[in-house]
Amino acid sequence: MQSIHLNTAGAGLASQQTLSRMSAYLQHEAQLGPYEAERLHADEIARVRQHLCALLDAPDSTRMALFDSGTRAWNSAVDALAPFPAGSRVWTSPYEYAGNLLSLQSLAHRDGLKLEMIPLCADGELDLGWMAREADSSVRLVSLVHVPSCCGRVMPVEEVGELLRRVAPAALYAVDACQSVGQLPVSVRAIGCDLLTAAGRKFLRGPRGTGFAVVGARWMDVIGSHPLDLHAAEVDSLHLRRMTDTSARRLELSEYHVAALLGLGVAAEQALGFDMRPVHSLFDRLQRGLRELPGVSLIAPSGRHSGIVSFHHQMWPAEAVVHHLRQWGINAWQISGRHTPLYLLPRGIDSAVRLSVHVTNSESDVETAVNALSALGAHRHTPLMEVAK
Amino acid sequence: MQSIHLNTAGAGLASQQTLSRMSAYLQHEAQLGPYEAERLHADEIARVRQHLCALLDAPDSTRMALFDSGTRAWNSAVDALAPFPAGSRVWTSPYEYAGNLLSLQSLAHRDGLKLEMIPLCADGELDLGWMAREADSSVRLVSLVHVPSCCGRVMPVEEVGELLRRVAPAALYAVDACQSVGQLPVSVRAIGCDLLTAAGRKFLRGPRGTGFAVVGARWMDVIGSHPLDLHAAEVDSLHLRRMTDTSARRLELSEYHVAALLGLGVAAEQALGFDMRPVHSLFDRLQRGLRELPGVSLIAPSGRHSGIVSFHHQMWPAEAVVHHLRQWGINAWQISGRHTPLYLLPRGIDSAVRLSVHVTNSESDVETAVNALSALGAHRHTPLMEVAK
Repeated sequence: MQSIHLNTAGAGLASQQTLSRMSAYLQHEAQLGPYEAERLHADEIARVRQHLCALLDAPDSTRMALFDSGTRAWNSAVDALAPFPAGSRVWTSPYEYAGNLLSLQSLAHRDGLKLEMIPLCADGELDLGWMAREADSSVRLVSLVHVPSCCGRVMPVEEVGELLRRVAPAALYAVDACQSVGQLPVSVRAIGCDLLTAAGRKFLRGPRGTGFAVVGARWMDVIGSHPLDLHAAEVDSLHLRRMTDTSARRLELSEYHVAALLGLGVAAEQALGFDMRPVHSLFDRLQRGLRELPGVSLIAPSGRHSGIVSFHHQMWPAEAVVHHLRQWGINAWQISGRHTPLYLLPRGIDSAVRLSVHVTNSESDVETAVNALSALGAHRHTPLMEVAK
Repeated sequence: MQSIHLNTAGAGLASQQTLSRMSAYLQHEAQLGPYEAERLHADEIARVRQHLCALLDAPDSTRMALFDSGTRAWNSAVDALAPFPAGSRVWTSPYEYAGNLLSLQSLAHRDGLKLEMIPLCADGELDLGWMAREADSSVRLVSLVHVPSCCGRVMPVEEVGELLRRVAPAALYAVDACQSVGQLPVSVRAIGCDLLTAAGRKFLRGPRGTGFAVVGARWMDVIGSHPLDLHAAEVDSLHLRRMTDTSARRLELSEYHVAALLGLGVAAEQALGFDMRPVHSLFDRLQRGLRELPGVSLIAPSGRHSGIVSFHHQMWPAEAVVHHLRQWGINAWQISGRHTPLYLLPRGIDSAVRLSVHVTNSESDVETAVNALSALGAHRHTPLMEVAK
C-alpha cells in the first residue's frame, strides 16, 4: 500500500524515473564492470553537476562537490578550513541543526574560537539589528540554516548575505539548505554565501547516500591541504605530494556510488521543471488546518514558513501522535528537541510531531491528516497504552 | 554482451541477488517512505554488521563502522586520532596505497611525526629483521596494505602483527584489506590489528559507495571527539555536548545509503559461503600464462600472490594493451605508478596493466586473456595509432 507521505523533510519519495535510472545503471555495472560502466557514462555523470548548478543558481560546476550526505558535505567543507585566528567569532542562530553545531563546536575547540548565537526578535525572526551592531572584523564565520528542520520557518538568507557583505566583509557565510533545495528557489548567487550544502534525499527526492556543496572562491582560498584523494593530488615520494585539482572537487573522495549520483541527477533535472505553487498552497492548507485543531500548538508559528510544520499536542505525546497517524496510513515524524537544541530545549520542547508536504502529496493527503488529528483530539480520554507502540 | 571481467581489483561484478535486494529496497523506500522503510528493516540492517564481522573474524559488531568507501573508512579512523607526541615514528611499506599515504602525510604534518618506510628484502618481502632492529617505543603507528593493488603480493600481516606485539607494543597497527576481503581469509583476530579497513566494491562484490572499518579498543581509546554525529552525541547547549555512543559507530555519520548497505550485506553473506580454491587455481593459471608470454614482465613476481597480477609489456604501452584487450571483450585496468608510488616510481614504472580474477571468472576467461595478449605480441609491428584510443 502506498503511504500518505508527510515526511519528505526526513526523506522524500523518489520518482520512478529516478529509481529506474539507478536500477538500470546497477545492471550495467554488473554486465560491463563498474569502472567500465562509469567510463561509458562519463558525460551523464558530468551533467549531474551541471543540473545541480542550474538548480542552485551556482556560478559553475567547478564549485560543486558531491558527497554521501548533507552532513558529510558540511563536515568536509568546515573541517578543511585552515585555522582561524584564536578569539575569532563564529555566529550561528538558535535554529541551527545539531549536527552542524557539533562540527562548529569542534572547530571552536580546535582554533580557540568564540561561538556566539544571533538572538531572535520577539516574533522569532533573526535580530538583524543585533548583527549590524555587533559585527566587526573578528566575525569570521556565520552559519545559518535556510529552513530549520524543526519548524519550516524560512530564514532571510539573502538579506543576511547583503548585511554581512556590508558589516562583516571578512566573515565566511555558510548556508545549510537541506530543507529548502527542491521546494524553494535557492540561488547561491542571490544569497551570496561562500558555502551552501544540502542532502539529496529530502525535497529534492534524490536517493539516500547523496549530498552536495557549492563552495565559493573565498572558502576555497582558506582551506588546508587535507583531505586530498587521488583525483586531486599526486604523491611523489614518502614526504612529497602535489595538488593537481584546485576545484571544489578536491574536497570529495575519489570513489563514489555512481548509481546514486545518477539518481540524484534525474531528481535534480526533474526538480528544475516543477511548478511548486500548488505545493505551497497545499502547505498553507495544512498549516491552517493544524492551527484550528484543538490541543495542537504549532512550533514557531509566526513568519514565513514552507514545506514543514511541527507541533506539539496538549493531550498526547509526540510518539503517540505519530503512531496514531501511522494507523491512518500517514507517515509523520517525531522530532527530538535535541536536533534543534538552541531553539527547542529552552522552550521546554523535548519532542514534537513534524509533517511536511511536497509534490508527491495531494489535497486529500492533507485532508486525511487533518481528519486523523481531529479524530485523535476527540478521543483524548483513551488511555495512552492503546495508542503507544 | 557480458564482458570478461578481469578488473575485480577495480570493482567487482555484483551478484543478481545483491542487485535485486537493492532495487527491491529502493522500491520499498518509494512506497513506504525511506525512513519508514528503514524502521521496518532494522533487523536486516543490523545483520549486515554481523555478516561483515563474521567475514572478518572481528570480535563483535560494536567494533564495526560503515562508510561510503574504503578510503572514507581509513580517513575517518586516521583523521580522528588524537595527536601523537611530536617526533613519534609512523611506519609504512613501499606497497602503501597513495590514498593512504596522503592521509599519513597529513597526520605527520599535523603532529610533527616521522614517516618512515620499512625496507624490502632483495626478494621484495618486507624486511622483518629491520623492523625488529629498529622498533622502539617511539613507533606509534604502523600501516600496511594486505594485498597491494599494484601487484597482488600477499603481505605477511599476521606475522607482522605478532612481531609488533613483541617489539613495538605501543604501536597501533592498521591494515588496509581493500584487495583481500572477499578473496582471502581475513581474520582481524589472527592479524591482531587495531584497525582494518576495506571497500565493499572489490572482491567482496558489494555495491560501490560502501566501505567499512573494524576499529579495535586500543584505537578507540586514542581518538578525539570529532567527528560526532547525532546517533552518537547530544548537544545540550551552544557550548556543551555529550557523547552517547562509544562504539566504533561513532566514527560514522548518521545518514547512510540503506539500499547500498543491504546490498553489501547480501554480498558479505554470499562471500561467507564461497569456496575460493578454484579461484586460486585460476589465478595461478593466469599468472603462469602471463609469465610465459614474450614481451610481458610481471611486477613484483616473486613471493605469494593472490587475485591480482600486473605487468608491463616491452612493445606496447599499458593504455594500448588495455585497449587491445577491450577489443577482445576483456576488462583490464591501466594502473598508474603514482597509485603505489613508493614501490613503482623508483622502479621506473609510470603505468602498467593489471588483471584480476575472481569467482565471476572461468577458465575460458583466463585462456582468452592469455590468447589475446599472445596475439598482441605477434602483431608488434602494427603502428600504435591503430590500437590507441
